[in-house]
Amino acid sequence: MTTTEYEPNVVLATKKFDVVGTRPIRHDGADKVTGRALYGADFEAAGLFHGKVLRSPHAHARIKSIDTTRAEALPGVKAVATARDFPGAGDEVVDIGEGATPLKYLRDNVLASDKVLYIGQAIAGVAAINPHVAEEALSLIDVEYEVLPSVLSAPDGMKTDAPILHEAMRTDELGESSDRPSNVAQHFQHVLGDIDKGFKEADIVFEQEFNTATVHQGYIEPQNATALWNNDGRLHIWCSTQGAFPVRTAVSKILSLPVSKIRVIPMEIGGGFGGKLNVYLEPVAAILSKKTGHPVKMLMSRKEVFEGTGPTPGSRIKIKMGVTNDGKITAAQAYLAYEAGAYPGSPVGAGATCVFACYDIPNVVIDGFDVVVNKPKTAAYRAPGATNAAFAAETVVDMLAEKLGMDPIEFRLLNAARDGTRRADGPTHSDIGCVQLIEAMKSHPHYNAPLEGPNRGRGVAIGFWMNIGFKSSCTISVNNDGTVNLVEGSTDIGGTRVALSMQAAEVLGIPAEDVNPTVVDTDSVGYTDFTAGSRTAFATGWAAYEAAQDVKEQMIQRAAILWEIEPDNIELDHGVFKSKSDPELKMTFKELAARLDEAGSPVVGRASVDPKGVGVAFAGNIVDIEVDPETGKVTILRFTSVQDAGKAIHPSYVEGQMQGGSVQGIGWALNEEYYMNQNGGMDNFSLLDYRMPTSLDLPMIDTVIVEVANPGHPFGVRGVGEVSIVPPPAALANALYRAVGVRLNQLPMNPVAVTKAVWDKQNQG
Amino acid sequence: MTTTEYEPNVVLATKKFDVVGTRPIRHDGADKVTGRALYGADFEAAGLFHGKVLRSPHAHARIKSIDTTRAEALPGVKAVATARDFPGAGDEVVDIGEGATPLKYLRDNVLASDKVLYIGQAIAGVAAINPHVAEEALSLIDVEYEVLPSVLSAPDGMKTDAPILHEAMRTDELGESSDRPSNVAQHFQHVLGDIDKGFKEADIVFEQEFNTATVHQGYIEPQNATALWNNDGRLHIWCSTQGAFPVRTAVSKILSLPVSKIRVIPMEIGGGFGGKLNVYLEPVAAILSKKTGHPVKMLMSRKEVFEGTGPTPGSRIKIKMGVTNDGKITAAQAYLAYEAGAYPGSPVGAGATCVFACYDIPNVVIDGFDVVVNKPKTAAYRAPGATNAAFAAETVVDMLAEKLGMDPIEFRLLNAARDGTRRADGPTHSDIGCVQLIEAMKSHPHYNAPLEGPNRGRGVAIGFWMNIGFKSSCTISVNNDGTVNLVEGSTDIGGTRVALSMQAAEVLGIPAEDVNPTVVDTDSVGYTDFTAGSRTAFATGWAAYEAAQDVKEQMIQRAAILWEIEPDNIELDHGVFKSKSDPELKMTFKELAARLDEAGSPVVGRASVDPKGVGVAFAGNIVDIEVDPETGKVTILRFTSVQDAGKAIHPSYVEGQMQGGSVQGIGWALNEEYYMNQNGGMDNFSLLDYRMPTSLDLPMIDTVIVEVANPGHPFGVRGVGEVSIVPPPAALANALYRAVGVRLNQLPMNPVAVTKAVWDKQNQG
Repeated sequence: MTTTEYEPNVVLATKKFDVVGTRPIRHDGADKVTGRALYGADFEAAGLFHGKVLRSPHAHARIKSIDTTRAEALPGVKAVATARDFPGAGDEVVDIGEGATPLKYLRDNVLASDKVLYIGQAIAGVAAINPHVAEEALSLIDVEYEVLPSVLSAPDGMKTDAPILHEAMRTDELGESSDRPSNVAQHFQHVLGDIDKGFKEADIVFEQEFNTATVHQGYIEPQNATALWNNDGRLHIWCSTQGAFPVRTAVSKILSLPVSKIRVIPMEIGGGFGGKLNVYLEPVAAILSKKTGHPVKMLMSRKEVFEGTGPTPGSRIKIKMGVTNDGKITAAQAYLAYEAGAYPGSPVGAGATCVFACYDIPNVVIDGFDVVVNKPKTAAYRAPGATNAAFAAETVVDMLAEKLGMDPIEFRLLNAARDGTRRADGPTHSDIGCVQLIEAMKSHPHYNAPLEGPNRGRGVAIGFWMNIGFKSSCTISVNNDGTVNLVEGSTDIGGTRVALSMQAAEVLGIPAEDVNPTVVDTDSVGYTDFTAGSRTAFATGWAAYEAAQDVKEQMIQRAAILWEIEPDNIELDHGVFKSKSDPELKMTFKELAARLDEAGSPVVGRASVDPKGVGVAFAGNIVDIEVDPETGKVTILRFTSVQDAGKAIHPSYVEGQMQGGSVQGIGWALNEEYYMNQNGGMDNFSLLDYRMPTSLDLPMIDTVIVEVANPGHPFGVRGVGEVSIVPPPAALANALYRAVGVRLNQLPMNPVAVTKAVWDKQNQG
Repeated sequence: MTTTEYEPNVVLATKKFDVVGTRPIRHDGADKVTGRALYGADFEAAGLFHGKVLRSPHAHARIKSIDTTRAEALPGVKAVATARDFPGAGDEVVDIGEGATPLKYLRDNVLASDKVLYIGQAIAGVAAINPHVAEEALSLIDVEYEVLPSVLSAPDGMKTDAPILHEAMRTDELGESSDRPSNVAQHFQHVLGDIDKGFKEADIVFEQEFNTATVHQGYIEPQNATALWNNDGRLHIWCSTQGAFPVRTAVSKILSLPVSKIRVIPMEIGGGFGGKLNVYLEPVAAILSKKTGHPVKMLMSRKEVFEGTGPTPGSRIKIKMGVTNDGKITAAQAYLAYEAGAYPGSPVGAGATCVFACYDIPNVVIDGFDVVVNKPKTAAYRAPGATNAAFAAETVVDMLAEKLGMDPIEFRLLNAARDGTRRADGPTHSDIGCVQLIEAMKSHPHYNAPLEGPNRGRGVAIGFWMNIGFKSSCTISVNNDGTVNLVEGSTDIGGTRVALSMQAAEVLGIPAEDVNPTVVDTDSVGYTDFTAGSRTAFATGWAAYEAAQDVKEQMIQRAAILWEIEPDNIELDHGVFKSKSDPELKMTFKELAARLDEAGSPVVGRASVDPKGVGVAFAGNIVDIEVDPETGKVTILRFTSVQDAGKAIHPSYVEGQMQGGSVQGIGWALNEEYYMNQNGGMDNFSLLDYRMPTSLDLPMIDTVIVEVANPGHPFGVRGVGEVSIVPPPAALANALYRAVGVRLNQLPMNPVAVTKAVWDKQNQG
């Protein structure tokens, strides 16, 4: 393994700030490195019961009956929950932030009612005096199944003779509405320009089909939930989640309870990556708590995490692109069929948005298909849907560049999306950093370093993610020692406590260490959406910024009282309150804080935001690999991740996101997959067999932060959490081609696939 | 025992409200009645150590040496803390909200350094793997004492030859500054008019001396504290306290830490009554946690509570009053000498404020003395200092009425304080309800009911308390189901969660049940002073009112967006937002809350207040008793408590305060005392021997809420938590006189004292 020296690098730096852009120690660091931080599994309470879940052994079956009598009779068992415990008919359509969804789908994925649609689907929950008794009781629940044939991939699911998961679905494999049931939950098409005209203008046209496997987010901490359905009718839930308020909403819908009857306490979270947006155990624990009157704690095993929670979809993608001899892309067409898993809702929409978003292409058609299959309902995974799409599109882009004999970066630069580029899904790019990103890659020493030796190759790829804004709220109160307390509702996964604190600190002219952030429960802060969509530093940061502005304004009013002048005559300049007219009048933030008692009540600021000025994000990779043609093993020699952060609030955590996303992309590219057996089950449901990259598999991931300020945020922030996962599979595929001359059109490109491709090529040659 | 039917009664009702004045169920009820509420003793954490305190066996001694070697060597002992562990010299003067105090006094009362000043004073803390090992280690701490003579009462302490507690004190028994040390910490004098002229105008003058014993607040839950001095330098404290922020301030001073390095989490509190304003265990647990790196939990035993925390002072009081033959009081003089306990700071100042505050008296002199003695440092106890003073003054008032042949209520009415009455301590009464209170007593069926039979008597008395305002902060956020979450920092002792919620609900036009209140830690809300001084429903309620106003204003802005009209055109009328000009435009709070997503970011309101419009409080009692002249036992036949609440937010909890205060006053009157032995120790340090009244000792306490609205609060609220304790001892003393013809000039009027007085009278007669 080769490592390169780690030199964090920020190019195209924007405005200079006092706090923003520095690297203070994160506030939650001590608790996390000493083991003091409390995760869901640490929860304890008097009278705690423990719950376990009975899961389906069949990929597709009708449930004829569930008899829990024997389980309930086992000494130590306190309650059993099944879908019969959901209140009401459950036939309404609800929205938990993902658009209109039949409530039945949401409930069935928590506790199946009439059918099971994947191996591992939850059927019943048991609460007992300890986890062992609960586990034993599972084997005493008698479920009578009528086993049905199953289907495990989007292409198979779209076949006319495929087993049907949901009888009510009526969209055929061409996307037309149909009289017969199908597994196509949705078809949509984006059209820009005239695709036929575009391909006619092209001198070279390539078309290629790709397949990607189902992969999992691979967070270390399994899902967990403790529920206490209190005697006063309020439900308290402690869990590991990316969003306490979204859990509140989902549980509210699933259990038909008003949101105000639910309090969600977000414990510390051991990774999520999109996989902890959904609820699985929470409603089951709630029902068991309601039945027993005790708090009930439930923890998943790793097998349950793999089989019972949402991975990211496998997909079938076809890309067709045309280019003129002088290198201008004239037309691009994409066909994206993503596995939704058991219930509708794959991220194919986001995949369609992202597939060509890096390029200025006048004629585009994109067809998206959301296909249900007998696998776990997919969930979000870091830039959901974009990585599959970029793997396909960036491979074809690379093929075109090669055919044209152009440098792959020059080719991308020539076709790069710019301000004014219209995307096929509608929006027009503005204030984007795509060109600056590609130029940073082009000028990077890595791209210009020699790479010699047999079976070695260098690949590049770029990717796009659009991010989201959404709602966030913060309050800030001032301590008389000149520090402030920041209350916020965003689960801190990647250092956002410090990133939010820094934005408040910048406004107030105080050090980040003088801001004390706390993530609180849903009772104790205004509505705040999940930590996802690369939105936390952006939107909750903005709420912190606005709450600090509210504090600043009140502090100025207090200074005006103390100085007996008008507030308009006072400004806050780098932490010093000053009269604009009288140079004698000045006080630091700390000095004024100490005197607040003289000038009125305590200072408390508040803000909530729902920002629209989201800055889209681009990232690119340069990767050098060496392939062992005998074994198919790919060794990464050097890896550089480049990303436009808008403005990096805390560069270390931006770099951390880039490195983490890169590594996940590498795992997806080279090793990870749900290895499905003939019964529709996953054979590799341990972390030993589900082969995520470890530090021993990787070089240092070099990072370059490009800063093209986002005018839609006070400090220019763009979301940084996701786009880094998008380019790695494509960059590695392109490097593989340069190394050994084979283009793999499938993920993972594991040793078996690489060896086979090399052998096929040798046999053809 | 006779009981009377319980008929809550509100007279002189003020403005009608929708929510204020109703009786919704308290939000914390379910948790408290099911045992789910978490008190300090319930705290658990990984790696928890347990602490115990070594306490002084001597009432007064010099500490010559402390050797902790043997204790530290005991297996299982993890650390020992002594005063040597306090940082720095500790010679500064600090203010923790009680005025300038030598830091040494505060520290010595937590861990004694050079001297112990009372039996039970803390000397060392031990942390061990369990409480038993910690307790065993206490006996292995070798303390070498030089025992000194001790002094246990204010009169003894003021003698010229008294043992001296603090060599630096220099005020003599006449209140003059002196060259020789004394135990008089402070002397002050209030003068109004011309006292000599006043007594000259009087036709009748009485003078009487009174003594009252030390009594304890008698809260059920002992003091407790868990501290975690985290690796990042932040100190977390879980404790039972009336004020999380004041604990933060006190620990900050005692440990010389910035307040922002301390987080105090107020657990539920099992009673305080003023006794949980101070810190005892918190700094010790903190030091032990710092030394061990583990959380350390400490709980007091009942003996430690009695011996090691602050009771309310014993006192010597002299009252002299003059009256004309037509019943007008012309002059009043008071001498108040209160025991401070080991360190200065008895509530004699408040006693002096209250002693004559019920009456309009033109000529007044009040002398107050704060005297240190070898007893625990006194703490606040419900209307601190006022009960002792009222016992004395109201006895003399009763003597005057009797001498004049006037009805005691008519006499009080004739002399009652009115708007414009100047108090000897300075302020002039305004908007007070003293006359209305006395009139309510006069017209009450109890006062007009016959009372026949031997050894029976009816007594009356009234009392005054001035209350406080102080700082409070709240935030409120709106849920989309039309409910709101209220975040506040006031420990809920007597139902203030619901009382604050009701004030917010009134503003928003929603039910109290639709407000969900949470008491949070010092990191998560703006500064909020303690729950004391009858201020919580008043001041934190006001903060809730103002935060609701902030919410209302934002909701109106959202409605304006939805309706496309100006905010000025919208009003909130009993929970319905309405256009002032277009009758078609109306939405309930719930309807608008559900549509907030269409109109912007989440709605979060905030407020902090430091209100000055405190409304003073008056209370009165009518009590019927029967005395057993053989045993001296006093049986209360009927008891009516009348109080001006300004406006009762939640009448049930106002009545609860009145009943609780009455019962505490009855215990103080008839039984409770620190029974001190010759060594300066307390002999009755269990709840069995420290004889608080139980339900079997008492009739139902009838209550009458008088409402003379306080113009200094949005809903007219006056503080209600304290004044009810003030009149009972005087009312009982006056009833005793009517029953058996003896006036007791001491508290408690226990069977021994009553028997002795009856016998003395019989022997004289």
